[in-house]
Amino acid sequence: MDDEARLGELIGDLERGLPEGRLVSDPEVARGYAHDEAEWAPYGTPAAVVRPRTAEEVRHVVRVCLRHGAPVVPRGAGTGLSGGANAIERGVVLSTEAMTRIKEIDARERLAVVEPGVVNDHLRAACAEHGLWYPPDPASAPWSTIGGNVATNAGGLCCVKYGVTRDYVLGLQFVTGTGELVRVGRRTAKGVAGYDLTGLLVGSEGTLGVITEVTVKLRPARAPEHTVAGYFDSTVAAGRAVAAVAEAGLEPSALELIDRHCLAAVDAWRNMGLSTEANVVLLGRTDSPGPAGEREAEALLACFEKAGATFAVRSTDQQEADALFEARRLAYPALERLGPVLTEDVCVPKAAVPEMLARIDRAAERHDTQIANIAHAGDGNLHPLLITKPGDEAARKRAEAAFDEIIAAAIELGGTVTGEHGVGLLKRAGLRTEAGPAVLALHRSVKDALDPQGILNPGKIFAREE
Amino acid sequence: MDDEARLGELIGDLERGLPEGRLVSDPEVARGYAHDEAEWAPYGTPAAVVRPRTAEEVRHVVRVCLRHGAPVVPRGAGTGLSGGANAIERGVVLSTEAMTRIKEIDARERLAVVEPGVVNDHLRAACAEHGLWYPPDPASAPWSTIGGNVATNAGGLCCVKYGVTRDYVLGLQFVTGTGELVRVGRRTAKGVAGYDLTGLLVGSEGTLGVITEVTVKLRPARAPEHTVAGYFDSTVAAGRAVAAVAEAGLEPSALELIDRHCLAAVDAWRNMGLSTEANVVLLGRTDSPGPAGEREAEALLACFEKAGATFAVRSTDQQEADALFEARRLAYPALERLGPVLTEDVCVPKAAVPEMLARIDRAAERHDTQIANIAHAGDGNLHPLLITKPGDEAARKRAEAAFDEIIAAAIELGGTVTGEHGVGLLKRAGLRTEAGPAVLALHRSVKDALDPQGILNPGKIFAREE
Repeated sequence: MDDEARLGELIGDLERGLPEGRLVSDPEVARGYAHDEAEWAPYGTPAAVVRPRTAEEVRHVVRVCLRHGAPVVPRGAGTGLSGGANAIERGVVLSTEAMTRIKEIDARERLAVVEPGVVNDHLRAACAEHGLWYPPDPASAPWSTIGGNVATNAGGLCCVKYGVTRDYVLGLQFVTGTGELVRVGRRTAKGVAGYDLTGLLVGSEGTLGVITEVTVKLRPARAPEHTVAGYFDSTVAAGRAVAAVAEAGLEPSALELIDRHCLAAVDAWRNMGLSTEANVVLLGRTDSPGPAGEREAEALLACFEKAGATFAVRSTDQQEADALFEARRLAYPALERLGPVLTEDVCVPKAAVPEMLARIDRAAERHDTQIANIAHAGDGNLHPLLITKPGDEAARKRAEAAFDEIIAAAIELGGTVTGEHGVGLLKRAGLRTEAGPAVLALHRSVKDALDPQGILNPGKIFAREE
Repeated sequence: MDDEARLGELIGDLERGLPEGRLVSDPEVARGYAHDEAEWAPYGTPAAVVRPRTAEEVRHVVRVCLRHGAPVVPRGAGTGLSGGANAIERGVVLSTEAMTRIKEIDARERLAVVEPGVVNDHLRAACAEHGLWYPPDPASAPWSTIGGNVATNAGGLCCVKYGVTRDYVLGLQFVTGTGELVRVGRRTAKGVAGYDLTGLLVGSEGTLGVITEVTVKLRPARAPEHTVAGYFDSTVAAGRAVAAVAEAGLEPSALELIDRHCLAAVDAWRNMGLSTEANVVLLGRTDSPGPAGEREAEALLACFEKAGATFAVRSTDQQEADALFEARRLAYPALERLGPVLTEDVCVPKAAVPEMLARIDRAAERHDTQIANIAHAGDGNLHPLLITKPGDEAARKRAEAAFDEIIAAAIELGGTVTGEHGVGLLKRAGLRTEAGPAVLALHRSVKDALDPQGILNPGKIFAREE
């Protein structure tokens, strides 16, 4: 049988077990599922794109792929930044975007049960109606889905106080690499019955199972936030302010850094006038209720001033405060207007933030690459954004060299190559260095245990042989 | 070669790679390592008890056992309540109790690096000197070790607000089932480089690796707590108060229930006069700072009163408040004075707490067994304590029937068979029912992946074949 005939059989088998419309037949539409938002990560042309609507349909897809030995690439909204959802040549892309039901919000137990295609912001809005709050807030929250957030263990702005996605996942239903539909985890506040397979699946980037349902923990709605903004002459001065906040024992609900390149790009797009006032902006927030919040906001302000802010202010105007955070969210699309952006995601110990920022500057200089910075500074999670001119191959090579240098520096400073975006394809070499051969071998054993045929997103996080 | 000769070779090989004094040679002392505090869980006579002092020594022990095919039972302080540390006939007990170094407390990064034998309370005290706090606080905190806490994912009183041990473990060093010494996890606030092997090891009860070092996350020291005590006529009324606290969106830092049997036992021992005043005591605490804490304490009080407390009071006297919590901590040893105590550990959804308490009462009646209750009521984590007369075999059989009935009820109410004590040997049947065959098969695959020879605490959590 030739390749085309095999492909036809695979598609036929997929179709036979699925209601009409689940298979994407328009090649133009299918092309949109070939890769996520990671610039430069390789991707192939999928044999098929499937959008199942039930767990049983997901299981059918995995079972057909098992029979045909075809790789399955699970995909949420495709907003990933490491290539984790990039299609594999002649594989099947399984998008969970059509599984959008919020099955349950239980205010008393403070939990929600959702399908994987529910958009992060939609869940947040639904929870708010019950006086509840789902904290994980990646910048992609208006588009990214809970399934994708779980698969990548997504972070966000509020992590500095409230933790990441893994901290909120109580239980999962998923399809294993052998085509079994299983349920792990719990609905109770505590539970230690057996291995933490739920936590193991979180952040496994679709390589250990295809998630079909997620039970998340919720928190009570929080008090309105106070915002403090500080303008600084240099990233080093802003880094000092971040260190001062940690030393003061404060617990801000966000602590974000935006550098001059980002400010200029946002101004060029939206004319907010930020870049004329500061080289670096630091945005702090606190959501402690009542007078404690007032005190914490004052303390943040004092830290900013002590560290040498040229201007620092407690925003009394909610609109003004929201505009500043909007600038933070706009930084990435604003830079994308200038050319392809390669997003870095290193995370270093808090004390190493100024040194890491200095090393990023040096890498930019040495490799003649424009690097802008946004950072979840309070977590030491930096997002250097490497910008190149479209089509400039030499610039791209230089940017890749800078990228590698930044990764090496992060490891040297006791950090990790990925704080919240995941390994995908772009950070495989970094993981290899960070984890070392013995730990990588453990990864391979765990992968073989849950996906013995190796059909679930093979080649993501680590290569089969390396 | 006969059995004795084989045993001699094993011990000789263990000794050859260890400094003097690591092997426990006194049989009387060795007997003390045969089991933990789980009444009625079976245990064997170990071939050897080893107390290594370094990670390399641990690795040596595991490698010798690998060579001899001898099972290794890792053990902390032996305060477990499920038989997880019970010795296996002719196996080696590896106690980490002599690895007691606090290697590092980093106030800026808010983390500590400790050896597994550090006692929980010792770590807490050392952190306090730096204005920091290690939250997980199992009732065994004065004796149990961080290594054991990590292996069982221990909970405690403050979990209701601050989570369990897993929420505080950033990284681990451990010896795998193949005798490799590896390091997983991170020192940074965030990190998603590869699978969460750290989280997988937490709560794996020594079946996936022997922990040799733990990196834990710390929090800033918290504000002094306010205590609210409520006296109730019945567990059902106290259960209503717990539900009211959840519905009011409050976040107490502890919410503990003590029933009349416990109160009577504590009084019989320490004469605190509690049992004459109440059938059930509910103890709530809040550590919100400043006026928010005042408000929350008043709100707790209102919930207690609304639910029908016969007496409820905000304790203004710290000594009095501490005495009430001391009664909570004394309940278990006070009951042990009456006879062997079998400790249950079910955890149910918060809304199911009153029903679960009623079912425990019915099980006690039906099986003519005295059952006392302490509970982390705010988490729905109940500790029915089954008490029998020493040597009364018929009573023991009845208690075991009641135990099984309670487990079945917890599963039926959407709960779990173990909230914080672990599966060990006592909850294996419960886990089998709760997880089901497909998920149990995943457990077995993961075990095989990390411990292919099956020498690490075999038979704990699940049997090899079942």
